[in-house]
Amino acid sequence: MLELLKKEILLANQGLEKYDLVTFTWGNVSGYDPSSGNIVIKPSGVPYEKLNITDMVVVSLDGTIVEGSLKPSSDTPTHIELYKAFPGVRGIVHTHSDWGTAWAQAGKGIPCAGTTQADYFYGEIPCTRRLTKEEIETDYEKCTGDVIIETFKDINPLEVPGVVVHGHAPFAWGQSPASALHNAVVLEKTAKMTFLSHQLAGNEQPEVLDDYVLNKHYERKHGKNAYYGQS
Amino acid sequence: MLELLKKEILLANQGLEKYDLVTFTWGNVSGYDPSSGNIVIKPSGVPYEKLNITDMVVVSLDGTIVEGSLKPSSDTPTHIELYKAFPGVRGIVHTHSDWGTAWAQAGKGIPCAGTTQADYFYGEIPCTRRLTKEEIETDYEKCTGDVIIETFKDINPLEVPGVVVHGHAPFAWGQSPASALHNAVVLEKTAKMTFLSHQLAGNEQPEVLDDYVLNKHYERKHGKNAYYGQS
Amino acid sequence: MLELLKKEILLANQGLEKYDLVTFTWGNVSGYDPSSGNIVIKPSGVPYEKLNITDMVVVSLDGTIVEGSLKPSSDTPTHIELYKAFPGVRGIVHTHSDWGTAWAQAGKGIPCAGTTQADYFYGEIPCTRRLTKEEIETDYEKCTGDVIIETFKDINPLEVPGVVVHGHAPFAWGQSPASALHNAVVLEKTAKMTFLSHQLAGNEQPEVLDDYVLNKHYERKHGKNAYYGQS
Amino acid sequence: MLELLKKEILLANQGLEKYDLVTFTWGNVSGYDPSSGNIVIKPSGVPYEKLNITDMVVVSLDGTIVEGSLKPSSDTPTHIELYKAFPGVRGIVHTHSDWGTAWAQAGKGIPCAGTTQADYFYGEIPCTRRLTKEEIETDYEKCTGDVIIETFKDINPLEVPGVVVHGHAPFAWGQSPASALHNAVVLEKTAKMTFLSHQLAGNEQPEVLDDYVLNKHYERKHGKNAYYGQS
Repeated sequence: MLELLKKEILLANQGLEKYDLVTFTWGNVSGYDPSSGNIVIKPSGVPYEKLNITDMVVVSLDGTIVEGSLKPSSDTPTHIELYKAFPGVRGIVHTHSDWGTAWAQAGKGIPCAGTTQADYFYGEIPCTRRLTKEEIETDYEKCTGDVIIETFKDINPLEVPGVVVHGHAPFAWGQSPASALHNAVVLEKTAKMTFLSHQLAGNEQPEVLDDYVLNKHYERKHGKNAYYGQS
Repeated sequence: MLELLKKEILLANQGLEKYDLVTFTWGNVSGYDPSSGNIVIKPSGVPYEKLNITDMVVVSLDGTIVEGSLKPSSDTPTHIELYKAFPGVRGIVHTHSDWGTAWAQAGKGIPCAGTTQADYFYGEIPCTRRLTKEEIETDYEKCTGDVIIETFKDINPLEVPGVVVHGHAPFAWGQSPASALHNAVVLEKTAKMTFLSHQLAGNEQPEVLDDYVLNKHYERKHGKNAYYGQS
Repeated sequence: MLELLKKEILLANQGLEKYDLVTFTWGNVSGYDPSSGNIVIKPSGVPYEKLNITDMVVVSLDGTIVEGSLKPSSDTPTHIELYKAFPGVRGIVHTHSDWGTAWAQAGKGIPCAGTTQADYFYGEIPCTRRLTKEEIETDYEKCTGDVIIETFKDINPLEVPGVVVHGHAPFAWGQSPASALHNAVVLEKTAKMTFLSHQLAGNEQPEVLDDYVLNKHYERKHGKNAYYGQS
Repeated sequence: MLELLKKEILLANQGLEKYDLVTFTWGNVSGYDPSSGNIVIKPSGVPYEKLNITDMVVVSLDGTIVEGSLKPSSDTPTHIELYKAFPGVRGIVHTHSDWGTAWAQAGKGIPCAGTTQADYFYGEIPCTRRLTKEEIETDYEKCTGDVIIETFKDINPLEVPGVVVHGHAPFAWGQSPASALHNAVVLEKTAKMTFLSHQLAGNEQPEVLDDYVLNKHYERKHGKNAYYGQS
């Protein structure tokens, strides 16, 4: 079942290494199939170069394993919460990529300091609040999803397709697994560029893009009258 | 038509990846043919590894597509303005390379802090002013060209073959597409080196090269009595 | 003798290059065989790409060469002290990896600023005190081991499997040579991430992970009820 | 003539790319043959991948081209001055490597902050003074050599085999071309590590290695009783 989605998830997981977003098995990609209501996700702790299409795990939105002999990623409950709360999201990526994780560790969102970010994210990539002791100790991975959702209560997740989790690392998503991977790469690039530009500004009053530039760049790629690319 | 120039543009666009200046399709190279008055430019949003010579788009200086079935780069109006204003320029490169973009995001020109930059740029690589709301909303890409031209009103663009656009990213140019690519690489290298040397100086009173060293280095490569290289 | 362990040590030494932890011959891996009481270690100054299984040197815990025609790593006395003091350790890695060495040179331990470190290290990766003049001049490599052991007088070395030696560089260890290599890679990654997050915080009051997050992450990988991975 | 030395120089020049010390043709290696009193040096502006053994240029210590159809490196007069002033030096490397050049641009020597540097450099890698206007305008490349020699008036160049030239970039040397290349790699590595450790210290009172550690490390590799490696 879901052979096409499994193939997409396999490719996107392999893409984590291609784009230098992961060390060892520190990342995972999932995809959501709205017709069956199931997700396909990477098995836990399996190296990317050993992954086969038959290793992919199919899980329902209540967390039941529907198909697969391996355990799904330990982050599966986070993915599930996000799919339930964010309509239109069809792919989710989690990594510990170097520069994005640095912002997460600093407990700071990545401000939109340039058009590189504005082309894909409609503003700052936010940082969640810290999880409480109780959230950590009761249902950690589910609560990681919840705190992301809370962060997006006034933000459209399709317009800002990523986040850094306080003290942890980035999550990114999109309308397909490939698009989620794409956004994870953008997040890492812009995390690096904006780290550097903030250092140049001496960490004092770093530059943020004017709203009208943000609007223009986001709209020329994603708006009704988008004119970037061939379609 | 313009087969030779198309070949040069194809090679220079592939060079963006070779020199690690681009992620995805975040960069483009064009070339200008003075005899026909046309430019050849990369099509919009096409990955470099899929580019063929027949994908190159020929555009006249009034923006009309003269040949090609694909849409030209969305930055084409910027390229056109620069060719019209900067006599002698035959190639233009635009990238979102990491270190150059950091300076653009910080809204700062790259001071000439060493001979590496002085060998190719006769002084600081300037940063443009911010575009106004009106410029962004009316004719964004053309105005990006205009603000670069304004920045060079007292600078010879053949002596300082590059710029960082405020909140955006670098443009570089040269007397051929290959030379424009070369200058884009130098801009990125010197953006990194001078970021680092400014950090060492604690962002206070960073070093700038003495004028007489700048003159010497620029002249030994580009002056009348240049003595670098084999010719 | 010890053919299996020699093979593991050869592979782990080659892994130093694969994971970009070494320049020239600036690193070495050893393994301990509790049944014979001997260790297997890289020969001194031999490039990784020229290493053969027969080059591995077998040394007893009193420092006698038991087998091998080459001189063992000059750091052998440090390895020996650690094996004698840290029960359960079966592999040790020493490198001069860039980011870990930067912390060592700064004389600072790597605080646990995120879950990436918490997944493998139960808290800060400590920095030793400086060695005294007498320690340096009498039995330098042995004293390097002693100062590490002193640093761990209140830390369980199996829970914090690494250290940076003041003014020198990292050591990491584990319950096998492969695990020691793994921990050396984690140390280098987290040294980079936490360098970056501290810079973002302006070196003032950098973030440290809450204890309950540290506990949770360490336990979900290493605790009694660990649920990461397939076993 | 000097076929063996030409081969060494060819290999060492190719090594500049292997060790990621150069962009384009921004670096050169020479070697000195004491019996003939000639040097072999890279031709100016020729890409490393196109270099053949027959391209190497033989130059006498008075600057006369003894053999070769190509122009020697424009930095040849610097190399010549160093060979004349530094007895025992048989190879010289010049690069614009990123991190070393950052220190040169900052006008700062690289302090000996750790054993990585101490293993090869007996203390700080110094920075020259700025060249005067007159020096630049009369005999620039020769004066670059002179200012290096002036910097070493109280330093043994065989014990500190490298320097950063103010506002310019590193030079390194050794008792053979291969050893000069080796020292250029060490200089770049330690330039990076010490940049990072200084940032960690907030640029305030950065750590410097104690003299007795410096002595120990330098001596265990280069002293009379050296015990690193197999010989």
